[in-house]
Amino acid sequence: MKRESKKIRIGNVEIGGNAPVSVQSMCNTDTRDVQATVRQIKELSDAGCEIIRVAVPDKEAAQVLGDIKKQIKIPIIADIHFDWRLAVEAINQGIDGLRLNPGNIGKRENIEKVVKLAKEKEIPIRIGVNAGSLEKELAQEEGDLSQKLVKSALKHVKILEDLDFNLIKISLKSSDVPVMIDAYRQIADIVDYPLHLGVTEAGTLKRGLIKSSVGIGTLLSLGIGDTIRVSLTENPVEEVYAGFEILKSLNLRQKGLNLISCPTCGRCQIDLINLAKQVEEKFRNIDKPVTVAVMGCAVNGPGEAKSADIGIAGGINEGYIFKKGEIIRKVNEKNLLLAFEEEFSKLLLEYH
Amino acid sequence: MKRESKKIRIGNVEIGGNAPVSVQSMCNTDTRDVQATVRQIKELSDAGCEIIRVAVPDKEAAQVLGDIKKQIKIPIIADIHFDWRLAVEAINQGIDGLRLNPGNIGKRENIEKVVKLAKEKEIPIRIGVNAGSLEKELAQEEGDLSQKLVKSALKHVKILEDLDFNLIKISLKSSDVPVMIDAYRQIADIVDYPLHLGVTEAGTLKRGLIKSSVGIGTLLSLGIGDTIRVSLTENPVEEVYAGFEILKSLNLRQKGLNLISCPTCGRCQIDLINLAKQVEEKFRNIDKPVTVAVMGCAVNGPGEAKSADIGIAGGINEGYIFKKGEIIRKVNEKNLLLAFEEEFSKLLLEYH
Repeated sequence: MKRESKKIRIGNVEIGGNAPVSVQSMCNTDTRDVQATVRQIKELSDAGCEIIRVAVPDKEAAQVLGDIKKQIKIPIIADIHFDWRLAVEAINQGIDGLRLNPGNIGKRENIEKVVKLAKEKEIPIRIGVNAGSLEKELAQEEGDLSQKLVKSALKHVKILEDLDFNLIKISLKSSDVPVMIDAYRQIADIVDYPLHLGVTEAGTLKRGLIKSSVGIGTLLSLGIGDTIRVSLTENPVEEVYAGFEILKSLNLRQKGLNLISCPTCGRCQIDLINLAKQVEEKFRNIDKPVTVAVMGCAVNGPGEAKSADIGIAGGINEGYIFKKGEIIRKVNEKNLLLAFEEEFSKLLLEYH
Repeated sequence: MKRESKKIRIGNVEIGGNAPVSVQSMCNTDTRDVQATVRQIKELSDAGCEIIRVAVPDKEAAQVLGDIKKQIKIPIIADIHFDWRLAVEAINQGIDGLRLNPGNIGKRENIEKVVKLAKEKEIPIRIGVNAGSLEKELAQEEGDLSQKLVKSALKHVKILEDLDFNLIKISLKSSDVPVMIDAYRQIADIVDYPLHLGVTEAGTLKRGLIKSSVGIGTLLSLGIGDTIRVSLTENPVEEVYAGFEILKSLNLRQKGLNLISCPTCGRCQIDLINLAKQVEEKFRNIDKPVTVAVMGCAVNGPGEAKSADIGIAGGINEGYIFKKGEIIRKVNEKNLLLAFEEEFSKLLLEYH
């Protein structure tokens, strides 16, 4: 069901082929501020981020990449627009990947310099087409935007292929989700390079989560996509959490708790919303793939959440703890969370 | 591209056929508490909720439905399990729709009583199959869960069709997103009844948004789905906002602002996250379909957000206001939001 794609490597992370779909993010620090950038990368990598991208707007930013690289453990991608010298400097600084559209570099000889060096050092290049920054002549053509994105990407691909370079990854982003879905679906049938999925300018937290989940989720459901970045106007740590939640929701990755909880209804006798939040908060950093259910009522709860490894169901002034649908313990409501923690800890021990 | 489905009516809301995809929610109040239930329905309806469902666990709850119905403006659906008398009472109380699985009612003569009355009053019935509460004999069978959901739904459908009743709507929910996607995709090809989409027990806010957006969004992208409910362990108002955001992200409905904002990067010189939040907050209740962009930099911002009707882009200690990609005004950073409000108000006047 998954689209077949070529495998490339960004540092020690495989992308494409049979590799798991990886989660990326991008720093929003000033890259030249090495300390702040390294601090953010560590925070993102602690949250699970597998590949990090940084903006390289000028020479000074390019020149500190080696210093940053030394202090971090995940592969780093330099995001470069227009200037071939920045790309060369970034590669010489030891970065693991480039995001660069060769058609925007200008003179052929300069493109060749970058591509030759990238080939030598086995540095993949992501062609990152964005609906908002399409080439003028393409943007003004009649026709469907998704087709234009594909056309633009193929133009960049051809430049690289003509230079016998094929460590390629492609993204076709738009803030319009159907455009982005259509574009990726089209290119998925034309080339076999791995695809980096994202919805651009997705917006503030809740809207951004929704737009990214719809766009990225739809494509992944169709078997398309090898690495993803959720882009949010928020602390990028949220991008990483969201990326993994999208992958987890489609059973493509496992990471930490899978929490299921019912929406509460007229049957619910306990403060379920808070209980679910407390469980989520308390066990955020558990790293075993356990499915935990927090359910409103003991009548339907344990049955509806049979698939959960462990769960809580509310009653009247009391609650139940269940495992795989079977009630194992009845406790007073005020001790519910505590008793749950106890049973949960026992369960976690079984995972060792 | 949209799947063809029969049209039914819940009160004055059309579902299926060429009707827009509608947004539903469910009260989490005790239905017997009429005041609290009516208050929540009004809050949900103010947020845009188009159809509301309430749990009807007992006779007392059924008997207050007429009283609730009188005080609200959106159609109401009674959620009933097992007891045919509650269904009859709910219909007599004037509700607009039922959620009830006829196979769980028991004696044939009792099913007939409910269906006869529903037919007489033209009250549609949603068959709501849920992975957690599958019939025992089905649950224990070998085979794929999504196929079992479909099988269960078709059994209930047959009961209604045999009684010559076809005001049917179907849901096939699971907390496992791929199961839910597969089940809906299968049944979409078998029957032409409208489909109610949802991921059940989706969880707390962020996880729930992601799971629901992936599941519901994927199906809608494929043209499947006539009405949706996002189910969250949260204030149900969030379900309504999320429902519309999913539909807006796929250009299936328009409602209020379409906010796009970039994820901030090393080039960003202003506090974009806060600026975007302020714009979102301030204009939350605008009900014109305006696309607003909040972008980090003046270099790429206006160009990348050309499709936006109006936007802000940050600079160094100053910012820009642009319309359709053209900068129309440059202002000091501290006056940026104010100047934006002024230009935005002018723009809104054009929508009258």
